[in-house]
Amino acid sequence: MSLRMTELIEKKKRGEALSTDEIRFIVAGSLKGEIPDYQLAALFMAIRFQGMDRRETTDLTREMMNSGKLMELGSIPGEKVDKHSTGGVGDKVSLVLAPLTASAGVVVPMMSGRGLGHTGGTLDKLESIPGFQTSVSIPRFLKQLSHIGVGMIGQSEEIAPADRRFYALRDVTGTVDSIPLITASILSKKLAEGAQGYVFDVKVGEGAFMRTMEEARALASLLVSVSAEMGKRASALITSMEQPLGEMVGNSLEVMEAIDALKGKAPVELIELTLRLGAEMLLLAGKVKDVKEGVEVLRSKLQGGEALSKFRELIGWQGGDPRVVDDYRLLPKANGRWEMRSPSDGFVSKLDAYQIGLAVRRLGGGRESLQQEIDPSVGIRCRKKIGERVRKGEILMEIYYNNPQKLSEVVEGLLSAVELSEGEVVPPPLIREKVVP
Amino acid sequence: MSLRMTELIEKKKRGEALSTDEIRFIVAGSLKGEIPDYQLAALFMAIRFQGMDRRETTDLTREMMNSGKLMELGSIPGEKVDKHSTGGVGDKVSLVLAPLTASAGVVVPMMSGRGLGHTGGTLDKLESIPGFQTSVSIPRFLKQLSHIGVGMIGQSEEIAPADRRFYALRDVTGTVDSIPLITASILSKKLAEGAQGYVFDVKVGEGAFMRTMEEARALASLLVSVSAEMGKRASALITSMEQPLGEMVGNSLEVMEAIDALKGKAPVELIELTLRLGAEMLLLAGKVKDVKEGVEVLRSKLQGGEALSKFRELIGWQGGDPRVVDDYRLLPKANGRWEMRSPSDGFVSKLDAYQIGLAVRRLGGGRESLQQEIDPSVGIRCRKKIGERVRKGEILMEIYYNNPQKLSEVVEGLLSAVELSEGEVVPPPLIREKVVP
Repeated sequence: MSLRMTELIEKKKRGEALSTDEIRFIVAGSLKGEIPDYQLAALFMAIRFQGMDRRETTDLTREMMNSGKLMELGSIPGEKVDKHSTGGVGDKVSLVLAPLTASAGVVVPMMSGRGLGHTGGTLDKLESIPGFQTSVSIPRFLKQLSHIGVGMIGQSEEIAPADRRFYALRDVTGTVDSIPLITASILSKKLAEGAQGYVFDVKVGEGAFMRTMEEARALASLLVSVSAEMGKRASALITSMEQPLGEMVGNSLEVMEAIDALKGKAPVELIELTLRLGAEMLLLAGKVKDVKEGVEVLRSKLQGGEALSKFRELIGWQGGDPRVVDDYRLLPKANGRWEMRSPSDGFVSKLDAYQIGLAVRRLGGGRESLQQEIDPSVGIRCRKKIGERVRKGEILMEIYYNNPQKLSEVVEGLLSAVELSEGEVVPPPLIREKVVP
Repeated sequence: MSLRMTELIEKKKRGEALSTDEIRFIVAGSLKGEIPDYQLAALFMAIRFQGMDRRETTDLTREMMNSGKLMELGSIPGEKVDKHSTGGVGDKVSLVLAPLTASAGVVVPMMSGRGLGHTGGTLDKLESIPGFQTSVSIPRFLKQLSHIGVGMIGQSEEIAPADRRFYALRDVTGTVDSIPLITASILSKKLAEGAQGYVFDVKVGEGAFMRTMEEARALASLLVSVSAEMGKRASALITSMEQPLGEMVGNSLEVMEAIDALKGKAPVELIELTLRLGAEMLLLAGKVKDVKEGVEVLRSKLQGGEALSKFRELIGWQGGDPRVVDDYRLLPKANGRWEMRSPSDGFVSKLDAYQIGLAVRRLGGGRESLQQEIDPSVGIRCRKKIGERVRKGEILMEIYYNNPQKLSEVVEGLLSAVELSEGEVVPPPLIREKVVP
């Protein structure tokens, strides 16, 4: 066994493509425990340097996906389409998008993840709603989908177990930053949902895992082309993650802002991105003829209150208290609030999403170790975004905290997260490119 | 612990140099079992792609060497110099060189290895002499060195244990072919001998681990420069390993040819290379003013019989039967002999050392798994070397075997190992370049 694996490592090291059978052997052998971690680690590092082509990535995705259970959505009527974001700071789009597109007739069987590194996770955010359950049995989930057309749950242990094994190893062996491995990891879990179409929001910038447009394009392109190889309709948007999306960063704060958005009164960039991603989903579902029509349909669903009603239903079905939608006081609230004020006049030229994400994690809003419980109430509200004018003494950020010690630890990083310029600043474009297979 | 290791893997992956402290942390942590194999494997693969500079390689060599015992040769009078070959086919030079240079007054504390892959090992060859012990206690070894000035033993478990751990892992993770890692592996063991000078015979060609002059130069240059950093005198010769060295390949066959060489009657290329390497050793020992004088001194030692006497003494001190020197019938002999004859007239243009090495291993002369015992009697005599004229029906090779099944398995490879050309062929130069720090 391990002798053959040595040969496969050598092959990839030389830059050759692994065959379908060889990739099957690697995934199966790893799951059976016949291939030791040290050989997998060496292989992942060789892949990190030599890459994998689309066919290899598709094979790896398929084998990893088939290592676990697949959702059977055949019994649910309607077109099923989902969205996946590669992770950012303040990215609460899923919370708005899932009920919104469901209210427009698309079935959204969304399986999400938790916060990773400096980025937040949809499950963590949802769980700040009192009673909300993200761990739901499959029959119960299917029932919910047939009734209200939307569900938002976590991946069960039975979904793509090979990815769980591989990811844990990559995390401690410096092999996370490989675009084919990232693609296979995302898709092996996401495509197991069994939807017909997927829209990918590939984040780019200092607050994202892809720092450059070149990397983001490579990932977006591989995500949509491998999805297509796997028989799915797919498209991707590359969107900016230099500054947090919206004003709020932190779990219950982001739930509030998401509900605001469902009421049509959130920051324009959050609404804009949600409408655009939703329009792409409607397009994949065959509900509209182009993006423009999709945006119009969704805007009317926001204005008519159907999207908000759908979110109420969703919360109710998953054990949460739907009254939060009307009364934010039902959400966890931090004890302390500290206002960071501007030392001078100017225009905001930088609002470092990475630093802000790290700070929220440090305050307790994310995990610094696997076992850690998160504090849903802490977070940061960014009162001034890039391009906005600010006067000396005005509030730049509000920091919501419970532990003063932790507050003191994040202040320095947050001070350096904001830069002002004397001249006017044009905010960076939010939606950079669309990528199709 | 493992968190810090993840950062070091990332650092090397980005192509940065690891600091002295970081390399110390890695070697110490590995030995203490605090760094898991999968992190080491990922690091080795990152080093395979990003390399290590001279300072890093020196640090790694030093830490690996200091992971075990060091020989203390201070009590032995005289200059101690040794030779190391990177491994070839039919390379029995050590068996001739050690007694020869010792007979010229250099102390040779030679610690050797076993066969690896398609190449033979000095210990395996010596052990075909009835009774010969390569496992000798250090006090006994030191006593032998003071009395006869030469000893040829294996590395004890106490020498460079970090190398043993690293090598076993590299062997199964496709990370053997890294020049800095090869350098640190060789030197961590070799420099633990405590000699003052080292001559390296870096083999290049199809039968060697370094296939190209470029690789061979890189290895030779790193070997001598790191040795110099470690306070040693050092030089290297890059020598050709396209065809086997001499006629004999196989353990007892090579012992016979080595004794022939000590009697001055072996193939000229074997004598030529031995004299040149020996002259480099005498030069490092300060015994001669240049290579030419060294060759003359050594030639007189061969002709006067002192080298042969020294080999007799060596065998006697290490428990072997010194009468083999005069009676080869005391050496193990194979039961079968098959003559491979030439299908046509021509000049030998290829004699593939790699194929021949693999065939001898397959016949039982080398190990195909770690536990396997070797058969010292099998092997191949190459009756025609590159450049020699051959007539149809003449013997090209004699194959000495015990198991007819294994003979049948090697015939095809051996037939393709020899190529003839119609026109005359100039044999490749044996000694290609000299490399100094």
